[in-house]
Amino acid sequence: MTSHLALMSCLLVLVLSLDKFLLHYLKKRWLSGPRISSAPSKSRRSMAAAAGGGGAKWSETAMLVIDMQKDFVDPAMRSPMLVDGGQGVVPTVAEAVAVARERGIFVVWVVREHDPSGADVEVFRRRFYSGGKGPTVKGLKGAELADGLAIKEGEYKLVKTRFSAFFATPLDSVLRTTGIKNLVIVGVQTPNCIRQTVFDAVALNYEKVTVIIDATAAARPEIHLSNIRDMKNIGVETPTLEEWRR
Amino acid sequence: MTSHLALMSCLLVLVLSLDKFLLHYLKKRWLSGPRISSAPSKSRRSMAAAAGGGGAKWSETAMLVIDMQKDFVDPAMRSPMLVDGGQGVVPTVAEAVAVARERGIFVVWVVREHDPSGADVEVFRRRFYSGGKGPTVKGLKGAELADGLAIKEGEYKLVKTRFSAFFATPLDSVLRTTGIKNLVIVGVQTPNCIRQTVFDAVALNYEKVTVIIDATAAARPEIHLSNIRDMKNIGVETPTLEEWRR
Amino acid sequence: MTSHLALMSCLLVLVLSLDKFLLHYLKKRWLSGPRISSAPSKSRRSMAAAAGGGGAKWSETAMLVIDMQKDFVDPAMRSPMLVDGGQGVVPTVAEAVAVARERGIFVVWVVREHDPSGADVEVFRRRFYSGGKGPTVKGLKGAELADGLAIKEGEYKLVKTRFSAFFATPLDSVLRTTGIKNLVIVGVQTPNCIRQTVFDAVALNYEKVTVIIDATAAARPEIHLSNIRDMKNIGVETPTLEEWRR
Amino acid sequence: MTSHLALMSCLLVLVLSLDKFLLHYLKKRWLSGPRISSAPSKSRRSMAAAAGGGGAKWSETAMLVIDMQKDFVDPAMRSPMLVDGGQGVVPTVAEAVAVARERGIFVVWVVREHDPSGADVEVFRRRFYSGGKGPTVKGLKGAELADGLAIKEGEYKLVKTRFSAFFATPLDSVLRTTGIKNLVIVGVQTPNCIRQTVFDAVALNYEKVTVIIDATAAARPEIHLSNIRDMKNIGVETPTLEEWRR
Repeated sequence: MTSHLALMSCLLVLVLSLDKFLLHYLKKRWLSGPRISSAPSKSRRSMAAAAGGGGAKWSETAMLVIDMQKDFVDPAMRSPMLVDGGQGVVPTVAEAVAVARERGIFVVWVVREHDPSGADVEVFRRRFYSGGKGPTVKGLKGAELADGLAIKEGEYKLVKTRFSAFFATPLDSVLRTTGIKNLVIVGVQTPNCIRQTVFDAVALNYEKVTVIIDATAAARPEIHLSNIRDMKNIGVETPTLEEWRR
Repeated sequence: MTSHLALMSCLLVLVLSLDKFLLHYLKKRWLSGPRISSAPSKSRRSMAAAAGGGGAKWSETAMLVIDMQKDFVDPAMRSPMLVDGGQGVVPTVAEAVAVARERGIFVVWVVREHDPSGADVEVFRRRFYSGGKGPTVKGLKGAELADGLAIKEGEYKLVKTRFSAFFATPLDSVLRTTGIKNLVIVGVQTPNCIRQTVFDAVALNYEKVTVIIDATAAARPEIHLSNIRDMKNIGVETPTLEEWRR
Repeated sequence: MTSHLALMSCLLVLVLSLDKFLLHYLKKRWLSGPRISSAPSKSRRSMAAAAGGGGAKWSETAMLVIDMQKDFVDPAMRSPMLVDGGQGVVPTVAEAVAVARERGIFVVWVVREHDPSGADVEVFRRRFYSGGKGPTVKGLKGAELADGLAIKEGEYKLVKTRFSAFFATPLDSVLRTTGIKNLVIVGVQTPNCIRQTVFDAVALNYEKVTVIIDATAAARPEIHLSNIRDMKNIGVETPTLEEWRR
Repeated sequence: MTSHLALMSCLLVLVLSLDKFLLHYLKKRWLSGPRISSAPSKSRRSMAAAAGGGGAKWSETAMLVIDMQKDFVDPAMRSPMLVDGGQGVVPTVAEAVAVARERGIFVVWVVREHDPSGADVEVFRRRFYSGGKGPTVKGLKGAELADGLAIKEGEYKLVKTRFSAFFATPLDSVLRTTGIKNLVIVGVQTPNCIRQTVFDAVALNYEKVTVIIDATAAARPEIHLSNIRDMKNIGVETPTLEEWRR
């Protein structure tokens, strides 16, 4: 019994000591290792990805940039919705968008915009809305894109009111009629908006779904990593930006 | 054979001569008559309506004002989407909204707003979009509400991209979490956006769905009337504004 | 005033005298005439249809056979859901299915099947369910296909609980992943299940939607015809079986 | 560097040694501790839960029993879809259902049933379907409930084709018209069908969502736990069966 408690203490210390180094280290060793990618259900997608790296039809790919709004990523807004790891990925997200534009990938800016009344926010978040104010209220500063990010002509802005970009929005219709079959996803935050959008994309049968793991973030590294693991387990590609841009 | 042709000619002449008088006349005689409303499937709803007239919980009722935008109802816009009977109902719609406000009914302004690219419009209408222009493009004049109509504080603006106000929108969620059980519908046009919204509302189990038949319109009176008939046949209430305001 | 009453009476007599002859006559004269099909929004689809007649990719077409169940079309069932014109179209539906099979068209049998409790039926119809019985209850005789119709291997059975075959079902997903772009629709009844399925198909951007007008039916001919007119007005093809099989 | 590697090795050994003891231990210490439950967004739900324990309206609660089918939980089926931790929770699930029945909770049996063609399965799983066979094909043994589980009269069977029980099914409609506001969820497996159903339930604004953490399972304990953590973070209740039955 004592040894179990000792084991537990040790484990907790280790988990709590997870930091950026560990995050990077784990990505290389754990997530991108050959063992996992050799599983049968993933090999097919991996091969497609490899082909994609070489001569992909980028015209059939869209990048979804999710929730990169001031209230989610800018600490200066003092929003209750701030994602701890959010600000750190703004430069990587900007770079990912730049790569997407070079490749002619269709860029979709997915943002939350809520009515000042909070009538269209999840009930468990409604207490944050009163007096015409609240997180990412339409028209207020908190709903704007983070500094350094901007929508260009020909890119699409999609307004959503839930975690998933597909929940009660025309996104699937817009993507399909634009000929999109593959999705690349960046933004915040991994366990909620990123993951729900990814799982809905898989349910909707998009052929290849890719999450760029250093252009997405969660409140804590272990939350980020465990969700990347689960997405990988259903066949989602999880490269770093460096790997994806090759 | 000749007599059949004569019959047909006669019928066509009559149908084409349908006018405002006839519309009003038919509403009284045909649609509101005792024969039809005594059908079993309708009686339950009719009773609810009667109760509603007396001491309805208007807090559980929402009014959906549909597509009352310049491109749909203002001939001066020269939009290909102009609904012939649209401009004629603007005053009745405005009056219906005024009554709703007096009663404390939650008013939802349902509008189409499309991306300049047309990426979120039905494919069969996409040819109307080019050079950043097209019917009800977001931010352009044609997407504005018709003169005489305006959104007040506390009212909700819902953006849609298809006929039905429920298709790929958070409308059902907004209504349910606001405690709405009954819907009153006005706007244009009867066979498309009105009817599709109404049928979806019935599929979604709203308890009472009411269409104010002189605050809705179609390109031609017989199109309006045949759709009112079909909605009535699935239990929808179809009063005139005068009847509804009593 | 007297003349108006006379006009009205005359009109009512005419409407009520609409019969099978008239239905057939109108289809030829009114629905298939050159005047209407020359409207701009329809011409594109018409051209596609013409091409379809010659060398269509039938592998991209699915036939939806809607609600051809005993409780809807067999008077012997004494179901409250019986569609008056339903039994009359069973042979045409059977023939349409035979043509579809010859062409290699993917056949989808859309049926209502409800829980004995009625928990999944529209609330306004729930009163028909009690004691484990009710219209098209799963496993009961009324839910079976009408005599003369049967599902063959390789064909798909889709269970729905509302008018539209797309409402809360995986139909869109099944069709898209089977490569289907065009739909041909037969069954009952025109103003409800047929029309709602058709309008949803248009909203979902199926490229060509075809309703075979003598393999669909409503309670009365004028209801059938006015709905065919409205579907035609949004670009739906409306051939007779004879025209479609050419 | 060496010390980092040592740390890593140590961590991996620990993670791999996670077992039933650890799972139980962590639940008590980590998930149910006072620190987390004192967060503002959770306290409201926690209070509701406390009240629920005392005098809950069980008539407003439904239990969703998810995917407890032979192909998912019975190793004898040799199904590629077998969930490693599945068989172990069958007794707890059975017990949870018994408690629900005593309380008069509406029980919904959520099952996957696929067409033999695989046309309605996710594309990334379609390779498992051929020759009329595949995981949980309708009518085959693998689609049956696990031994020891059975549907009673008055309980509802819901067929789904994706992870989430709400995806393309009438579940939300059935629950709402039955007056259900709260959900209790058991079954397999935590990162996919359980979590996706839970997140959709939250998006659909169910008031209280409860996952019984020892009546749900994943392939490995750490996958189970990290998903429980994420659900807890959005306000989901996560009691053990013992805690829930009090």
